[in-house]
Amino acid sequence: MNPNPPLAARQEETVASPTARFLEMLAPKLAATEEVFIQHLESDVPFIGQASEYLFAGGGKRMRPAMLLLSARLLERDSDEEVTYAAVVELIHTATLIHDDIIDHATLRRGQTTVNMLWGNSLTVLLGDWLYTTAMQMALKHDNLEVIRRLCDATLKMTEGELLSLQRLGAIDLTVDEYFDIIERKTAQLFAASCFIPSLMKPERPDAGELLERYGRALGTCFQLVDDLLDFTASENELGKPVLSDLKEGKLTLPLILLLPRIDADRRQLIETVLEDGNFGRVSREEILELVSSEGTLEEVQTMAEKFAEDARQELSFFPPSEARDALEFAPDFVLQRRS
Amino acid sequence: MNPNPPLAARQEETVASPTARFLEMLAPKLAATEEVFIQHLESDVPFIGQASEYLFAGGGKRMRPAMLLLSARLLERDSDEEVTYAAVVELIHTATLIHDDIIDHATLRRGQTTVNMLWGNSLTVLLGDWLYTTAMQMALKHDNLEVIRRLCDATLKMTEGELLSLQRLGAIDLTVDEYFDIIERKTAQLFAASCFIPSLMKPERPDAGELLERYGRALGTCFQLVDDLLDFTASENELGKPVLSDLKEGKLTLPLILLLPRIDADRRQLIETVLEDGNFGRVSREEILELVSSEGTLEEVQTMAEKFAEDARQELSFFPPSEARDALEFAPDFVLQRRS
Repeated sequence: MNPNPPLAARQEETVASPTARFLEMLAPKLAATEEVFIQHLESDVPFIGQASEYLFAGGGKRMRPAMLLLSARLLERDSDEEVTYAAVVELIHTATLIHDDIIDHATLRRGQTTVNMLWGNSLTVLLGDWLYTTAMQMALKHDNLEVIRRLCDATLKMTEGELLSLQRLGAIDLTVDEYFDIIERKTAQLFAASCFIPSLMKPERPDAGELLERYGRALGTCFQLVDDLLDFTASENELGKPVLSDLKEGKLTLPLILLLPRIDADRRQLIETVLEDGNFGRVSREEILELVSSEGTLEEVQTMAEKFAEDARQELSFFPPSEARDALEFAPDFVLQRRS
Repeated sequence: MNPNPPLAARQEETVASPTARFLEMLAPKLAATEEVFIQHLESDVPFIGQASEYLFAGGGKRMRPAMLLLSARLLERDSDEEVTYAAVVELIHTATLIHDDIIDHATLRRGQTTVNMLWGNSLTVLLGDWLYTTAMQMALKHDNLEVIRRLCDATLKMTEGELLSLQRLGAIDLTVDEYFDIIERKTAQLFAASCFIPSLMKPERPDAGELLERYGRALGTCFQLVDDLLDFTASENELGKPVLSDLKEGKLTLPLILLLPRIDADRRQLIETVLEDGNFGRVSREEILELVSSEGTLEEVQTMAEKFAEDARQELSFFPPSEARDALEFAPDFVLQRRS
């Protein structure tokens, strides 16, 4: 049985053209963003250049830079400034990822061996520190204090989200509210900041900023719900890491949080066993996948993700029609369709 | 044989009164700095408040805040702004310490169990991230971009210093130049920034800033040389951690770097053994202490520290006499006399 029919069905319905069209629109700015990485991720400490190249040549979806650049385009900004901030949000995102990978003892990320596996935890702690500070230093270039404040706020929230998640690691009683609190901080905040920051460029656009902030928050929440679904529904090949990684790491996500109160003690025990063991020795991946398919909670989470996608789109109605607005309207669909 | 007669001799020569007098002068501002810690180290994530309280109630010399506040007083600044920055430099210092303690697997710091031992590496990585970002967020309060830039620069340098140190861990062939490059980044930079930052407050004082920066760098270098000497000459009780911790962690410091080319292969082997083993199982602490006393390199390093202290003092001759200048002139003596 396909554990997630709506998601698979959606993918067949759509054609690739909107993604290609909007990526083409952003191509010069995205290329300029990559150029910023190449220029700034240098240091006279040899390890930094080497590890940075590995990290940034290794790819990644560049979702946050793309959202920032689209919001900038919506507000008709066209300068080096938004390119800098696009690079900065990706740097902050990458710094959080590599520190999170230490904590999760992750071995694979985007199909690549993680930095902590390659170089050890000590170098990875320092590389993350270096990336965070380099991000702030780069952002300072344009003398916009409000942008720096927003970046600090988002970074603090992300760290707090990871702390909350870590403190509830292995807990079978994580609530829906706790889950949303964690993903709001860990993911939605940086999406919100990415969409909001162009409104802080001169001339400021507080009216647009408020809407774009809400748009980004809803989109980021949708993104994380889809991320958590993919851990059940995608293949290892698509994800670039094993499926059910979250559960193995002791993290309950929404499909299981919704499932647990509906199943009997024996079946709850299966989930509890994996949380306790941190591996699939006593309970197989297949048993968990079958269990989670049985009650339809994947479809429920998919519906919730679609609701957040719709909420995001609604925030855009204030803006006059434009190619950038079309792209921002399409972004939630792109997020819902993604398989990796 | 006393391994470090000049230091001990100096301590007997001086009376406690200058320290007490200058500390009294700074007392209101230092108390305000502690107040800033109490106010800002809060979060709705319970662990953060708990761990921050442990860290900041646990003391510390507050050398960097004191130097910043003295420089501010020299330039006749008297506002909340310098108090904020005093708190910020201590926060940055603390963040680097707790990340370094993860890397060094340190169990004791300032006589207290380290955060990594109490709460584990994962929470400690995130707590350090939170402290770094909170420091930047606090510093933003006074809308002074140049200060933020200087803080980012210093933080990057500190991270790079720790990276360089880590990459040469266990190396018996660390050179004097590499050693000074590492301590310049790891320690001298934040002292330099602390002394420099008050010159960036309005009205800016670039002339004074240049001198205070050089003063801070020389003082910071002196401070680190003394720190490295104390690892040989102080008691565990004074240090709040075991003696010869550096060597045990695989770090060669100047007394041993100067010593190695002067001794025969058998005696070099003793040092190499501890570097390799990471413990004093095959070679005792006493053997190493005796060896290092035999060639007088502790005295040579002490003389170098005194030279940096003198260099620091010389930078102050430009400033008209004042109580703050007296205190800054005394600070290098305080650093040379310290036993912990």
